[in-house]
Amino acid sequence: MLILGLDPGSAITGYGLIAADHGKYEMLDYGALRTEPGPSDAERLVLLYDKLQALLEEKKPDSIAIEQLFFNKNATTAVPVGQARGVLLLACAQAGLPISENTPLQVNQALTAYGRADEAQIQYMVTRLLKLSAIPKPDDAADALAIAITHAHNHRGRQLLGESK
Amino acid sequence: MLILGLDPGSAITGYGLIAADHGKYEMLDYGALRTEPGPSDAERLVLLYDKLQALLEEKKPDSIAIEQLFFNKNATTAVPVGQARGVLLLACAQAGLPISENTPLQVNQALTAYGRADEAQIQYMVTRLLKLSAIPKPDDAADALAIAITHAHNHRGRQLLGESK
Repeated sequence: MLILGLDPGSAITGYGLIAADHGKYEMLDYGALRTEPGPSDAERLVLLYDKLQALLEEKKPDSIAIEQLFFNKNATTAVPVGQARGVLLLACAQAGLPISENTPLQVNQALTAYGRADEAQIQYMVTRLLKLSAIPKPDDAADALAIAITHAHNHRGRQLLGESK
Repeated sequence: MLILGLDPGSAITGYGLIAADHGKYEMLDYGALRTEPGPSDAERLVLLYDKLQALLEEKKPDSIAIEQLFFNKNATTAVPVGQARGVLLLACAQAGLPISENTPLQVNQALTAYGRADEAQIQYMVTRLLKLSAIPKPDDAADALAIAITHAHNHRGRQLLGESK
């Protein structure tokens, strides 16, 4: 199963593609969809949409994993990030792909079990689980890989539960 | 000039279409694009996108006016509203339409001059300026008409400044 993880942002959206097979994960690709400032918000969203569509067509993932966003306090960036996330969700749903959403806590728990790891520990676990030689950059790409692993992990958990019935 | 005002929301997006001609405004249509809860966030965004695309094709506005959103405090709804707004901006930009964004304060000032009117006063001004027999419902549609009037008002102001040079 090919899982594309997405970490939405208005300027940089991280992505990470993994293949998951019976609890084994392989990193296939990662990177960032960037939209330069300058044109309007709306034009940047068109660019983001086009870039994701091209990525989906090229990589043909089976499912999408994307982080749930929460802004409880200072939320000045909540609207632009929400706008980017909306456009990503739209493109994935239009492509007919199933989308799983996980909270940052769920990502943390899937990767480190105890759920209170900091950013550096998460990145270390991503690097180890995918047998990479270095921490993926930018951070958004590492986060996207973490989200993809979380989806694979939870999916595997449900499979095992189903199989043991 | 046909101006389509949009008041973005995750469940209800208000819209209001006006014709503006040398400082005179005429209401042509208003209403709400609704997406029922039940399907996923992503499926609701597809529905919103499709509904707006159909509206743009049917009404053929010359420009779009949309409110700028600010969430400084409790921002639990900032992400879903931002997602809806992102999808609306995308559809309008893909249709090649110019988009003007105004803050709630600018809308307030355009309609009431002193900029501290409450919701009821804004709705009264919308009703009066467009010579309507009743306050437009739902509130989201009235807000969308207010945003469209603001755009027409500011556009007219710039025109007059240009003409007086």
